[in-house]
Amino acid sequence: MRNVANRHGFSEIQMPTFEDLELFTRKSGPGIVDELYAFKDKGGRDIALRPEMTAQVMRFYVSDLSTRPKPLKICYFGPCFRYENPQAGRFREFFQFGAEMIGSQTPETDAEVITLAVSQLKVIGLKGFIVRIGHIGIFRDLLKQFKFSDEEIVDALHHLDKDNADEFKKCAQRKTVPAETIDQILSMRKLKGGIDVLDSVESESAKSYLREVTEYLSALGVKDWQIDLGIIRGLDYYSGLVFEIDAPNLGAEKQICGGGSYHLVPLFGGEEVFTTGFASGFDRILIALENEGWKHEEKPLDVYVLSIGDGTRKQALEITHRIRRSGLSADFDSMRRSLSKGLKYASLISAKKTIIVGEKELSNGIVTVRDMASGDQLEVKIEKIEESLKS
Amino acid sequence: MRNVANRHGFSEIQMPTFEDLELFTRKSGPGIVDELYAFKDKGGRDIALRPEMTAQVMRFYVSDLSTRPKPLKICYFGPCFRYENPQAGRFREFFQFGAEMIGSQTPETDAEVITLAVSQLKVIGLKGFIVRIGHIGIFRDLLKQFKFSDEEIVDALHHLDKDNADEFKKCAQRKTVPAETIDQILSMRKLKGGIDVLDSVESESAKSYLREVTEYLSALGVKDWQIDLGIIRGLDYYSGLVFEIDAPNLGAEKQICGGGSYHLVPLFGGEEVFTTGFASGFDRILIALENEGWKHEEKPLDVYVLSIGDGTRKQALEITHRIRRSGLSADFDSMRRSLSKGLKYASLISAKKTIIVGEKELSNGIVTVRDMASGDQLEVKIEKIEESLKS
Repeated sequence: MRNVANRHGFSEIQMPTFEDLELFTRKSGPGIVDELYAFKDKGGRDIALRPEMTAQVMRFYVSDLSTRPKPLKICYFGPCFRYENPQAGRFREFFQFGAEMIGSQTPETDAEVITLAVSQLKVIGLKGFIVRIGHIGIFRDLLKQFKFSDEEIVDALHHLDKDNADEFKKCAQRKTVPAETIDQILSMRKLKGGIDVLDSVESESAKSYLREVTEYLSALGVKDWQIDLGIIRGLDYYSGLVFEIDAPNLGAEKQICGGGSYHLVPLFGGEEVFTTGFASGFDRILIALENEGWKHEEKPLDVYVLSIGDGTRKQALEITHRIRRSGLSADFDSMRRSLSKGLKYASLISAKKTIIVGEKELSNGIVTVRDMASGDQLEVKIEKIEESLKS
Repeated sequence: MRNVANRHGFSEIQMPTFEDLELFTRKSGPGIVDELYAFKDKGGRDIALRPEMTAQVMRFYVSDLSTRPKPLKICYFGPCFRYENPQAGRFREFFQFGAEMIGSQTPETDAEVITLAVSQLKVIGLKGFIVRIGHIGIFRDLLKQFKFSDEEIVDALHHLDKDNADEFKKCAQRKTVPAETIDQILSMRKLKGGIDVLDSVESESAKSYLREVTEYLSALGVKDWQIDLGIIRGLDYYSGLVFEIDAPNLGAEKQICGGGSYHLVPLFGGEEVFTTGFASGFDRILIALENEGWKHEEKPLDVYVLSIGDGTRKQALEITHRIRRSGLSADFDSMRRSLSKGLKYASLISAKKTIIVGEKELSNGIVTVRDMASGDQLEVKIEKIEESLKS
């Protein structure tokens, strides 16, 4: 995932594991404290283990990165923490990979961020996942036409996100939104499918924005996605395009990635700037991969060096050193085992080849190289060992 | 550092960021609490951010790894935490790389662990460092001859470690150690230099052990080291060989690595097994490297793709996608800049090449590839772009 991000021009940064509690409540509100590992340190300061990394990245952008050339493309990976009941795919310590693009406000910017998230999943070999793209700006713009304040918009979107039509209607009626428009908003929220579902949307700017994004996605190699205007993400800071990626094999907790464009920099004291990004749940992605039959396999050792008898030990270590220097992985028998026990260990750790260093052979300047899969053995001159291993 | 460990046959494991406080006090005693980020979670449990990782590895070995083929070679990397006044090279959040070898008890086992620590430093390019090798078992064995209990040994070694000769003498006199032997121990502690300094040591077993270790170190490519019997490491669990690596350019806080063989597995409920390992301070190593003139350099982007005019954007993105797929890193202009501003950005982010996608050229099936260092430009057929970038 790091390599893919690098190939897409994102640079990795690393943020501290804990911060002042205030950093996280500033972004997510005081309610977040219940879900945090928050505590007082020995100096009486309120600190918290990070529940996510975007707030940290915003703080760091404002303090250290704001004068960098735009767009700034950064990514990060590390453990995050939440105090919740653990369940499948929901751990108290979990790993997030995230990326943010700061400073360019075009449809291709959002397309690039989605492309990175999708390309990472493709490269690591996940097959079953669904990319859904929405646009929270469509709802925001509509509500603004009826003079909703920022707080009222947050409230209304929250009700839409929670699928609470009655509460939404109450909000809308208070602002004298016509019944027809209320119905239009409620049904827009159900729009899901190909680009054509946008035909019934009134907002020309959002429509053409999403059309451009999907056209660029296709150019960047992302052909499979669906429009889903039901992605509301009841969070104050999402402003325009939003997207989610699900791995259906995960069942109820199937979301493995979420993102979109958002407003957070001013909250941390910086100047308004367009920001878009995502965070992927690394643990869930691993579980989804495992559900598809993927197994973590340890890299086998290239060469195991086995010395027979005390007199050959030093040269066995020298041979090990030479093989390592040639770039291969190598280990030696540090337990002074017999030939048969040494070979058994070599096969237990899945070594590809074993070099047997015997006294008689050594006095003739040769060692035996055994291919562990076939059992074939070959006598090789000491000075030709590296060469013989290349073939 | 990971690659080197892998080449030496070590497998990486990952341990949680916090654990029950008791895990750390069990290893290091209740005194450690003052130096820890320890707190109660919402369930009233005493937990602590890990101050180091060996205790976790031992716990995990006992619970999950004890039946694996021996020796077990594991390594780990991650943040650790201590509540102390921050100073140069001493941060509250710091990174450790560590490795442990479990289950083989031979001089070549200790040699292998030292070799890994040293090879990592060599590979990352650190020049000025000193490897010092001691043997705490020499002191333990001597004290045991005078029937010191385990607690009395810990006390006595602690005084030696703190260079407190008077207190050590008091301990020794209580156990009726002859004045001559006391002097011998106190002067042994000052022995430092080549292998010959061991000539004056009485313990034949420790002498021949250290001689073998240094012989095997040499075979494994580690030629520079010194014997330093003054490494006492006033910690209960070190039992035999001990070693430290310093980077003198760091000044007072110059130790960048410490290790040796130790007894900890039984403390965590496992059967007695030989264990040896080390932990390196990653932040200090970085500072030592920087003091030698090393600079962290961001990997430059291979190709920046600049589309001139709206009509070429989609094809510019397709070209970006193709280049990324070929394995190179590529980015495109997401800010719709002019040619001159686009080239300026490309040079600000140190792109190696820029591909200029102009409307007229595109209609002729070509793009311009500009080498950013020389300024040389070249017209290339669209289908030959990947090929042209390889040269």
